[in-house]
Amino acid sequence: MRSRLSHLECAACGRTLNADALQTLCPECGLVLFARYDMASLRRAHRDELSARKGRMWRWFEALPVLDPNCVVSLGEGATPLLHAERIGERIGAPRLFTKDESGNPTGSFKARGLSVAVSKAKELGARSLTIPTAGNAGGALAAYAARAGIPADVFMPIDAPITMRREAAYYGARLHLVEGSIADAGQAARKAAGETGAFDVSTLKEPYRVEGKKTMGIELAEQFGWELPDAVVYPTGGGTGIVGMWKAFEEMEALGWIGAKRPKMIVVQAEGCAPIVRAYEEGEPRADAWENPQTNAPGLRVPSAVGDFLILNAVRESGGCAVAVSEEAIAEAEQAMGRYEGVCAAPEGAAALAGYLQLTDNGVIERRESVVVFNTGSGLKIPERLK
Amino acid sequence: MRSRLSHLECAACGRTLNADALQTLCPECGLVLFARYDMASLRRAHRDELSARKGRMWRWFEALPVLDPNCVVSLGEGATPLLHAERIGERIGAPRLFTKDESGNPTGSFKARGLSVAVSKAKELGARSLTIPTAGNAGGALAAYAARAGIPADVFMPIDAPITMRREAAYYGARLHLVEGSIADAGQAARKAAGETGAFDVSTLKEPYRVEGKKTMGIELAEQFGWELPDAVVYPTGGGTGIVGMWKAFEEMEALGWIGAKRPKMIVVQAEGCAPIVRAYEEGEPRADAWENPQTNAPGLRVPSAVGDFLILNAVRESGGCAVAVSEEAIAEAEQAMGRYEGVCAAPEGAAALAGYLQLTDNGVIERRESVVVFNTGSGLKIPERLK
Repeated sequence: MRSRLSHLECAACGRTLNADALQTLCPECGLVLFARYDMASLRRAHRDELSARKGRMWRWFEALPVLDPNCVVSLGEGATPLLHAERIGERIGAPRLFTKDESGNPTGSFKARGLSVAVSKAKELGARSLTIPTAGNAGGALAAYAARAGIPADVFMPIDAPITMRREAAYYGARLHLVEGSIADAGQAARKAAGETGAFDVSTLKEPYRVEGKKTMGIELAEQFGWELPDAVVYPTGGGTGIVGMWKAFEEMEALGWIGAKRPKMIVVQAEGCAPIVRAYEEGEPRADAWENPQTNAPGLRVPSAVGDFLILNAVRESGGCAVAVSEEAIAEAEQAMGRYEGVCAAPEGAAALAGYLQLTDNGVIERRESVVVFNTGSGLKIPERLK
Repeated sequence: MRSRLSHLECAACGRTLNADALQTLCPECGLVLFARYDMASLRRAHRDELSARKGRMWRWFEALPVLDPNCVVSLGEGATPLLHAERIGERIGAPRLFTKDESGNPTGSFKARGLSVAVSKAKELGARSLTIPTAGNAGGALAAYAARAGIPADVFMPIDAPITMRREAAYYGARLHLVEGSIADAGQAARKAAGETGAFDVSTLKEPYRVEGKKTMGIELAEQFGWELPDAVVYPTGGGTGIVGMWKAFEEMEALGWIGAKRPKMIVVQAEGCAPIVRAYEEGEPRADAWENPQTNAPGLRVPSAVGDFLILNAVRESGGCAVAVSEEAIAEAEQAMGRYEGVCAAPEGAAALAGYLQLTDNGVIERRESVVVFNTGSGLKIPERLK
């Protein structure tokens, strides 16, 4: 197994950087760095051979950025099930509705993928301590992988984050800092602390490797659909690394000949009380202004601004998708439907995605005969007060 | 894919029964029924072909009891990671210590395996409603699979079960009945209700198919160790289906030529405040008397008597294993170690297993150089008040 990582490249201005040291944002324009691979060489690692390997996310080692397999910090993340949402589908006449259920990941959310890669790469590049701002789930994931790697971690979380998430991060031995406000305020506190202590900040898309973990959701989607892709992907969007990672995966897989040119419509779902990407989408803007006074009971959607906004909006538009906001009531109803009809314990963010799908089929924007994957990004068990 | 299910056989008196109708306990002696397979035919389903299939637990379809693949009710259970417990191992000089981490199963525990099979088979055999007594996790699992199958479920749970587990079962739409006392009292209430309503009771080992799901933990262990088996398996034991199922798997796999004659020492861990199997093991008894006034903070270990006691004790003795009780303090310490050093969010039962392992290496009963698998049977996220 040999990673074909080649270099880093700014996704906005195109500047290239060496991948042999810790990097954050583009030193030129301050935007997002992407890992780039030697595609000619990667083409020799055959898709079906990688797919047939035992293991989960790290089956795709050649297309991931860690060079030394001994640096991989894994808890068994990825390779999550694609579940046919048969009973909800029957109720609305949608026979090809699926849930990609990320709740069985270590630490109970899709955040495990990105943080397994980011912590592994940080370990390889010699980071001595790590820090993260989080709405909740990413903090638990960082804390778990950092514990496994033996690297100290500082987690900055809103003081009103769900109690299970607060306790989880501390349980893994991270230093937990509770912050007044939203994840944006936690981000400021994390940056300040990192400046003082020299800790490496693994904020979403502010370092190049979390998105590489999220990329594997896109690879798995293709794999699970027999190397085609569904007609639409409905994704609850806070920081947006999931959308950005999947879009990157599709591009890389096409370049490798793993898939053809077909892309799913990429559909962003946000909460009505915090919908910066939806607003920018509707207004035709290339970037999204920060959302004032973000309010939603879905912690992962309470993200007022995203450094990767331009990449999210680009994926939505290029794919012919859209961005839609849903109400708290619709989220709660969809949450119940996931439990009652599918046996899936949905996180509120996953429920929001289902609510978005239902809204778009009602409007006729998505047709019911289309094959659609709704992402449940985490486990509802982490917010038991919502289980009704 | 064709299941090689042949008939049912009493594990105690050997009486055989037809497998084409719902069955509970042996009508002759009142003990445990096992599913039996046409082994000559099953031998033609090659181990490596099954292992190479996509999917998880249901890769072993031929060796599982559901005849019609359309009756399979699955949420993506099984194929859980085997994690090297490297940092705990380093601290105590044990280089081959592993955790089989069941926490990523649907509903956050190993109970998903057994209930996926039991609900699938009950669906195939036409059960109209299901009922279960539970310490907590099995109730959530039954509720989820029953929801997915569209079969009503009644869950009987001690009134002091962890709140996340109570809410979870209700969330999936099961009728939740809270009962004063332990799982034994919940069992009485469930039986009474089943007698009145005709619901099918899926109590541990009181129907023949949950154990078939647990069997897959034994198959996976062999698969993950390259079709050999580790030197010892340390298992937290309440009703004991895990031990019984793995032992059955080893016997079947040897008969099929999948593995050789080597067996791991099967090691039962219970809590000091509820250790009926440990007491029977120490006293040389073939069965275990019910434990009076069971007390432990590990809900899954608060099981005062097990209908499969004779099977558990048999596996422990035949394998040269042992049974050991651990204190609540040792459980809490091991729980912290799993988080701090391994990044695994251990259920208290899984922590008890680690505590048992540590006690036995201290005593020299297990040698530190031996390859040992400690089962973490569930996610600590379901009892957030324990996360410290």
